[in-house]
Amino acid sequence: MPKRNRFAERRLIMKQIRFGVIGLGQRGSGLIKAALLQVPEIEIVTVCDVYPERVKEAQTLIKSRTGKEPCGTQLYADILADKEVDAVLISTAWEYHAEIAIAAMKAGKAVALEVGGAYSENDLWNLVRTQESTQVPFMFMENCCFDRNETMAMNMAKAGKFGTIVHCSGMYGHDLRSEIAGGNVNKHYRLRNYIARNCENYPTHELGPIAQILGINRGNRILTVTSVASKACGMKEYVEANPQSDPSLKNAEFKQGDIVDTILKCSNGETICIKLDTTLPRFYSRAFTVEGTKGRYEQNTNTVFFEGEQKEEFWTPAQSYKQYFNNAEAYEKDYLPDYWKKITPEQLAAGHGGMDYFEFRAFADCYLDGKEMPVDVYDAACWMAVSYLSEQSIACGGAPMTMPDFTCGKWLIRKPL
Amino acid sequence: MPKRNRFAERRLIMKQIRFGVIGLGQRGSGLIKAALLQVPEIEIVTVCDVYPERVKEAQTLIKSRTGKEPCGTQLYADILADKEVDAVLISTAWEYHAEIAIAAMKAGKAVALEVGGAYSENDLWNLVRTQESTQVPFMFMENCCFDRNETMAMNMAKAGKFGTIVHCSGMYGHDLRSEIAGGNVNKHYRLRNYIARNCENYPTHELGPIAQILGINRGNRILTVTSVASKACGMKEYVEANPQSDPSLKNAEFKQGDIVDTILKCSNGETICIKLDTTLPRFYSRAFTVEGTKGRYEQNTNTVFFEGEQKEEFWTPAQSYKQYFNNAEAYEKDYLPDYWKKITPEQLAAGHGGMDYFEFRAFADCYLDGKEMPVDVYDAACWMAVSYLSEQSIACGGAPMTMPDFTCGKWLIRKPL
Repeated sequence: MPKRNRFAERRLIMKQIRFGVIGLGQRGSGLIKAALLQVPEIEIVTVCDVYPERVKEAQTLIKSRTGKEPCGTQLYADILADKEVDAVLISTAWEYHAEIAIAAMKAGKAVALEVGGAYSENDLWNLVRTQESTQVPFMFMENCCFDRNETMAMNMAKAGKFGTIVHCSGMYGHDLRSEIAGGNVNKHYRLRNYIARNCENYPTHELGPIAQILGINRGNRILTVTSVASKACGMKEYVEANPQSDPSLKNAEFKQGDIVDTILKCSNGETICIKLDTTLPRFYSRAFTVEGTKGRYEQNTNTVFFEGEQKEEFWTPAQSYKQYFNNAEAYEKDYLPDYWKKITPEQLAAGHGGMDYFEFRAFADCYLDGKEMPVDVYDAACWMAVSYLSEQSIACGGAPMTMPDFTCGKWLIRKPL
Repeated sequence: MPKRNRFAERRLIMKQIRFGVIGLGQRGSGLIKAALLQVPEIEIVTVCDVYPERVKEAQTLIKSRTGKEPCGTQLYADILADKEVDAVLISTAWEYHAEIAIAAMKAGKAVALEVGGAYSENDLWNLVRTQESTQVPFMFMENCCFDRNETMAMNMAKAGKFGTIVHCSGMYGHDLRSEIAGGNVNKHYRLRNYIARNCENYPTHELGPIAQILGINRGNRILTVTSVASKACGMKEYVEANPQSDPSLKNAEFKQGDIVDTILKCSNGETICIKLDTTLPRFYSRAFTVEGTKGRYEQNTNTVFFEGEQKEEFWTPAQSYKQYFNNAEAYEKDYLPDYWKKITPEQLAAGHGGMDYFEFRAFADCYLDGKEMPVDVYDAACWMAVSYLSEQSIACGGAPMTMPDFTCGKWLIRKPL
């Protein structure tokens, strides 16, 4: 039985959600522009960062766009104590995500939690138990769950185009070397993680949409996590070859393997492969792929292959991919969500091709209508858990680690969204 | 120290290699056309299969091409006892590969062993020890080691274009459903394997070229094998949907997971991912990929991305792949092997786009010149071992299994080819 939601009454009289933004680095400041300022129902009333210059910049930006300068602080406790704040976006360094989200929920602030991986199981239990006991609206802001290719594939899956889905795969392929090593490295949370840890540190961009398609936490769950990491050469060679990198990095040793491959096994028998590839030269890719008994979809080349609709004609992979390149475009009229068909040029330009806007649009709609969030605390816990589980698996030579059931059995009851 | 090779003297007086072909199914009969009849130094003097109609067909085919009908038998022992046979091609069901190869070497016949996976470690030790004690020429016929994309990437690797290579991946993506379930299923070795086993049953097409690029058994070795299998739905649904399948399959349960993902860790720190994908609708692909600190190559789209030569311009995967599609073609003049540049239309048409011809060309050259075979018994043992190790790993929920060192330390001494 759902508990009484103390946000319900408030929503009836609100037209606006008053947001505090905690964490104004690249992602926080980017989201202000790409999403928060694009959703009419959202008002940014206060901003926070440990670096005062970032606070100032955000205040100036928001004033230039809205005419109203938000409050600013270096202490997130100030925002949580502020009665004029309804919700917070947490876009800090990864290490503070769970801590601040838990504190925010305890203070009665709705939480939009930016993505990242978890460091320990206990943090995730605290996150889950706090949301359950406070019933505060909580959404894990995995923007790729709202992207064009992924949402189209989700609709294809719902329509049965793939038949029985048996496997999905994806990656976070993003050359982050200059971001990790460049600029003021002391500010950068990624740097310390790449020096000290070896794990699937950023699993959710590819895992999120896959988990939704496979009904994870809604009739299905992830059972095991197996990870193996390659050696770590990319960052070291990059620092050597780029003298403009921060001098403190000159003799740094990076523990983070350049490529981490992770295989997840689900209770319904599906497997999921995800790959971290962030310290080698490459172009961006998520390589989102769905495979079933009746067909498949591949994001890299936007290719579908459905039984009875496409035919195998060649034996050379490059010939097949040439023939089928972008053939999923013809399926957009039937399977692309309406909101993608109707996207405006402003929304497209806003950030990450529109998906950042759509995720905050969804947050606002669910918050104001009192609806269930599309990516909830159980999803957050399960997806973030892959980081610490992969760290353990790598440390044990690729031994499978077991995923906790953060729903405590409710995945058997929870219905598809 | 190399032992005295008793084939050396014979070679001096030979102009021909007299071959016996053991196993005349799809692969054996295909190789006769694609490769054996294309290499002038090879003469097929005898053919063998347990099914007499296959023997007759092969004899007829060879006579129609050469004017001379080879001997025929249903017993491979006849071929091994035949003094007029120098070498055998073993292209039988997988279960007999090791047994016949060992018997052939003991009978002094050079061995060209068609690919497949192994069922037990002991078979592989026997294979290795027999070759060591007999010093009979032995080549593992992994045709993909001779294919266009793979050999070009090998040359790029040797030239340092990838920098330090940290990861390679590949797959055997080939919809075999009609081959497994169709026709006279009692003859089909794949069928019984798909019903009874769950493993990476065919690892070498992608693993072979990768192992060569990473110098496996020559300064590097594979340490661990971790495999996870998806559920098995593809064959069952195919049989239900295709009533023309053999009636004996109507209620068959298939243990072979549709997708098997395997991660290998190497002593030099590289990782290798391979994927088996043979019972779902798809077009053929090996998705051969090499990744290093200075660049990458992807076979599916024939795409290179080298530091300082290509630039990241887009955020949408499909846009990047569109821009870079087939851009490796411009590198062929520098990195494609000469034999691929000079391939004749007849060789191209012969089989699998030429690679079958080139592997038997290499066998004949090495045999006649007394040179080391390019894919030897240590490679065969290591690559074939992935099958039984993956079977064990899957049975243990994805636990890592250790790869035996079939060279017994000689990988530290053996030089790159």
